[in-house]
Amino acid sequence: GSDEAARAAAARQTTLTKPPGSLGRLEDIAVFMARWQGNVVAHLDKVEALVFAGSHGVTARGVSAFPAEVTAQMVANFASGRAAINQLARHAGASLKVIPLHIDRPTADFTQAPAMDEAELVEAMTSGMAAVDPASDLVCVGEMGIGNTTAAAALAAALFGGKGVDWVGRGTGVDDAGLSRKAQAVDAALARHGAALGDPIEALRRVGGRELAAICGATLAARLHGIPVMLDGFVASAAAAPLAKLAPEGLAHALAGHVSAETGHRKLLAALHLSPLLDLGMRLGEASGACLAVNVLRGALACHAGMATFAEAGVSGSPPA
Amino acid sequence: GSDEAARAAAARQTTLTKPPGSLGRLEDIAVFMARWQGNVVAHLDKVEALVFAGSHGVTARGVSAFPAEVTAQMVANFASGRAAINQLARHAGASLKVIPLHIDRPTADFTQAPAMDEAELVEAMTSGMAAVDPASDLVCVGEMGIGNTTAAAALAAALFGGKGVDWVGRGTGVDDAGLSRKAQAVDAALARHGAALGDPIEALRRVGGRELAAICGATLAARLHGIPVMLDGFVASAAAAPLAKLAPEGLAHALAGHVSAETGHRKLLAALHLSPLLDLGMRLGEASGACLAVNVLRGALACHAGMATFAEAGVSGSPPA
Repeated sequence: GSDEAARAAAARQTTLTKPPGSLGRLEDIAVFMARWQGNVVAHLDKVEALVFAGSHGVTARGVSAFPAEVTAQMVANFASGRAAINQLARHAGASLKVIPLHIDRPTADFTQAPAMDEAELVEAMTSGMAAVDPASDLVCVGEMGIGNTTAAAALAAALFGGKGVDWVGRGTGVDDAGLSRKAQAVDAALARHGAALGDPIEALRRVGGRELAAICGATLAARLHGIPVMLDGFVASAAAAPLAKLAPEGLAHALAGHVSAETGHRKLLAALHLSPLLDLGMRLGEASGACLAVNVLRGALACHAGMATFAEAGVSGSPPA
Repeated sequence: GSDEAARAAAARQTTLTKPPGSLGRLEDIAVFMARWQGNVVAHLDKVEALVFAGSHGVTARGVSAFPAEVTAQMVANFASGRAAINQLARHAGASLKVIPLHIDRPTADFTQAPAMDEAELVEAMTSGMAAVDPASDLVCVGEMGIGNTTAAAALAAALFGGKGVDWVGRGTGVDDAGLSRKAQAVDAALARHGAALGDPIEALRRVGGRELAAICGATLAARLHGIPVMLDGFVASAAAAPLAKLAPEGLAHALAGHVSAETGHRKLLAALHLSPLLDLGMRLGEASGACLAVNVLRGALACHAGMATFAEAGVSGSPPA
């Protein structure tokens, strides 16, 4: 990030025709975007929504309200342009790229064995890194994968402590028995993998999934290219979280698009020191919340770029205190 | 509102390719808009942002961080297209109409006398009613008026009880002494006007202002035309509040675009049973928060209109419980 661009953007904000601070987080966003794009006035000409899809062996444990084949069906729905994310990406002015990751080959059931071997982890992370176009102005990351809120809960517990009950939620809508099975699956994974989960990337391999590994890779690649990232919900946030464990500023280039209704998300964002832009009770995934939040960024940058200064407009400033 | 259109929209939501409820408030918005537009799939082809401006005699009490002439200067800035609201209205796909209401003639200082006489109140409310184009799909209401957070605080206290200290905030950025003067002005107004404030419209006349009366009129006219309304911040919410006091469902056609950083707004929205769409620390007025929230509505309606049903997409539904 460029401290110089951030300082210049903050200075510009103080000259615009509004009481200082009165645009709230829109002002912070203008400064954040300037920092990561290295321009006092950042732009959003090329926004990409990356949706990674994967299949999960843990679905055998009855952790989802929907059958595992829905993952492939929804990937087809994305291709037909008729899913929620197609509408929300278009509305955000984002191009949508859907990347299925061997969805015909589920990860191993992580209550029994590591979800991925090392080659599989590397392949998935590399797919995520390769999906990021270095010319992007912003990358939104999201996912599709029946069973993946259980993987995300296991990963959150591995990284930040607690048990299954602290992190699982109803996902696509499991009943009380399903919720209990999710907590049991997480607890079984924590017991199975034990101290090996102390390494954040090893935790991603053992209890994550291919689409989580890809999101982690994409978020890392964006950082290397100096591109800001908009995280989607609970799963995407958990997927990126290993970067924050590896380095204190590892997610400094990321915004939380929203806080979802999935139980663990608010706590996870707090652990990541991320404050969500939206809080609308969404819990769909697919990068839907991230794309909706892009509109807030566009509004912030429109003000930052288009407003007159007090001097230009001949507006009297605040009298000296 | 049309119960039939609302029911049909809610039924449509359950067929779309997503877990039931997973779009959160976006689903509620689709139903709300269907109800007020009387169409199962509502549209936002014609969105209007109405910004009313007025001047306030109470500014003589030192209640604002900015001099009173800034109201006229900002109206000129709106006309030049360089204020925040110009950028945010364009981004929302809204046409902006600015309606100055005798800004060369401030209301009376309401600590001493009613802010408006009856003819002035009627003229201001009528201006607001006339500003609403019956062909609009949505009307956003906002304001500009140095001193008007003090008027809004006085009106909120008149309608919902409490004293000045319960409702005043820093507005454009007053210091502690200014904040104290605001509370004193509200308390003086409550003492001066007494029991007359028990009538909501009389309270608007005595402690409101021209732009507040116009917002109240515009919100009422929208209801008569069956047009949903997006409220902006503290001042716009207080201005519309008499309608909620006059009838329990008086603001059923209104959404709160955001909750502002102005101290009293969260409490006022709670009193109005309105849950804000955005919470971004904004406190500018000008309909800025309302216009930013229009993008959330557009996202909601894009999903409602554009998504495939489970049957169309060949996606397996949730198994029977």
